[in-house]
Amino acid sequence: MERNLLDNIEEILLMGPGPSCVPPEVYRALARPTLGHLDAYFLTIMDELKILMRRIMNTENDLAVPVSGTGSAGMEACFVNLLEPGDRVLVLINGVFGARMREVASRLGAEVEVMDFPWGTPVIPSLVGEKLQDGDYRLLAVVHGETSTGVANPVAEIGALPRQDDCLYLVDAVTSLGGMEVKMDAWGIDALYSGTQKCLSCPPGLAPLSFSPRATARLNSRRGKVPNWYLDLSMIVDYWGKKRVYHHTAPVNMLYGLYQALEIIFAEGIEEVFARHRRCHALLVRGLEELGLRMVVDEPFRLPMLNTVYCPTGVDEAAVRRRLRTEHRIEIGGGLGPLAGKIWRIGLMGHGAVEENVGRFLSALRATL
Amino acid sequence: MERNLLDNIEEILLMGPGPSCVPPEVYRALARPTLGHLDAYFLTIMDELKILMRRIMNTENDLAVPVSGTGSAGMEACFVNLLEPGDRVLVLINGVFGARMREVASRLGAEVEVMDFPWGTPVIPSLVGEKLQDGDYRLLAVVHGETSTGVANPVAEIGALPRQDDCLYLVDAVTSLGGMEVKMDAWGIDALYSGTQKCLSCPPGLAPLSFSPRATARLNSRRGKVPNWYLDLSMIVDYWGKKRVYHHTAPVNMLYGLYQALEIIFAEGIEEVFARHRRCHALLVRGLEELGLRMVVDEPFRLPMLNTVYCPTGVDEAAVRRRLRTEHRIEIGGGLGPLAGKIWRIGLMGHGAVEENVGRFLSALRATL
Repeated sequence: MERNLLDNIEEILLMGPGPSCVPPEVYRALARPTLGHLDAYFLTIMDELKILMRRIMNTENDLAVPVSGTGSAGMEACFVNLLEPGDRVLVLINGVFGARMREVASRLGAEVEVMDFPWGTPVIPSLVGEKLQDGDYRLLAVVHGETSTGVANPVAEIGALPRQDDCLYLVDAVTSLGGMEVKMDAWGIDALYSGTQKCLSCPPGLAPLSFSPRATARLNSRRGKVPNWYLDLSMIVDYWGKKRVYHHTAPVNMLYGLYQALEIIFAEGIEEVFARHRRCHALLVRGLEELGLRMVVDEPFRLPMLNTVYCPTGVDEAAVRRRLRTEHRIEIGGGLGPLAGKIWRIGLMGHGAVEENVGRFLSALRATL
Repeated sequence: MERNLLDNIEEILLMGPGPSCVPPEVYRALARPTLGHLDAYFLTIMDELKILMRRIMNTENDLAVPVSGTGSAGMEACFVNLLEPGDRVLVLINGVFGARMREVASRLGAEVEVMDFPWGTPVIPSLVGEKLQDGDYRLLAVVHGETSTGVANPVAEIGALPRQDDCLYLVDAVTSLGGMEVKMDAWGIDALYSGTQKCLSCPPGLAPLSFSPRATARLNSRRGKVPNWYLDLSMIVDYWGKKRVYHHTAPVNMLYGLYQALEIIFAEGIEEVFARHRRCHALLVRGLEELGLRMVVDEPFRLPMLNTVYCPTGVDEAAVRRRLRTEHRIEIGGGLGPLAGKIWRIGLMGHGAVEENVGRFLSALRATL
């Protein structure tokens, strides 16, 4: 082979909106020998993985599977399995990923209503509560950690709002899971999905997903088949459950990676992991403010793992990111949509959320500005 | 950590219908440092990967991307992007994967007609030619290597049949690509998808896919949006093309693996790779026949990489597979559908298609029978 591009990959400190830094044990897990997707030993790993997923989601749901795709495949899987054409859905939007939910649901023929909240501010539960009074919604959907703005939405409060019996509650936990508390059962969440490449510190490629018994009943009482064979959970559960019916070939090595990533989190202790995220977040905010920068989100609503800060006027934000990448081997993210060109998004996710990285980043930013 | 299941994974000789054995270089590629999905160096790897994919598919199509899911996601992506409700489709069926095509297309609201051919025999082009005369089909779909039976369908001949101008030709190359000739452009194929876990010798998780200019035009002139946001190729091409618009986070490390796997194939030489598959296939068939076993498929229609053989009467086929796995660390596959319990499926795919493995398997089978 002449030149192999993989030989020259640099080790980059990934402090953007994801993917995040991956621990060596997870890389080693990805490289373990591939087993058949119906091999008895592999089935044991799958069973253990389901237990670990339930544990990090704080759920006793039977239906817990890693969807064979990235976080957005988890979003697609939730909507396509739970909605039928004409179903009324209420989507709460305060960033890119809420807007994506509207788009996904609309394409499936649902009647989507939205409530828009300003980007950089959280969803306001009392307003949602009023809205829920008029509508016979079949589904209420919100993003927990809005990766585009750095806002933590009050998903527990929203879940506690009175709503019609048959209105399911769907939460996007792509960015939050593994970096802050997610209590699926206690918060009344019926459908939840995440991604591996944020606080779980595994490369992108899987979307851990769980359905409550109510959501599973909705799936099982559909009028028509799920209009997406690949993501049809009514069949996928027969592979991940006792029947072991072949559906599609599972992404075996990625599943090793997720298993290892979850093992690492529980070995450290989930509360210690969350505390580490909070400590690094506080350190980062202090450092940014010392540099004279202003945070986008008000203090009570900030995500610890995704920090948004305004780029000072007169500074070329993209040029700063390029210099951080080339001169300091650090990746951070820029803004999306209305925030493009105006903010930076600084990730402190999973394995990468350590004081040392915060210090390295702040020095690099100071040198660059 | 108490016990880590990954530490006890045995190295299994994967000679089933896939996943197949993975070379060490590909495992190492999976474990290279994760880069951001918009990182300039990663974009270089993506561009090179597109070139390698076109080369193995023998196409000059602009649209060539690895879908972020397994082979079945490639099938779903082709149908959901090319079909709209009410479109007439002709699906040629002689095994599980043809039947899956019917199911996928039906769920999308297409009017699906099928031609059934006996399992274990190939599709007969002359009969298809007659059928194509009556129908104004928008799509004709067939599986190249039918993994459930071991039959190679005559996709070149089917592609050459006269058909209406606006009838696109879709081919499943999941099992064939990388193990035998696939000439997308010369055979008039408009849409083709594969999977990484067969003759490409990469773990499962990606579906290389390409659309001809005609298929791309069909996509771009749809009446409605693609009813699957995650697999919407009209947006995915903007990430894989010049615009680099973020769609979903690419499965970075799996893409490293596919890049490496294709590099290995072209370093050996594609003609030599095909010849190696044919040699091993001939050696295996001879050995099986010496053991008194009977092949399922007639000689001219056999796939070199997926060999089907009848289990002798009175032998418990599942018990043989279990003993091969536990006593010899070899995985082979059983039959599906009407062939369940009656046949074995023996894979000689990619990296695993070497004389040594054929010998090891035949000795083990001899000892077991």
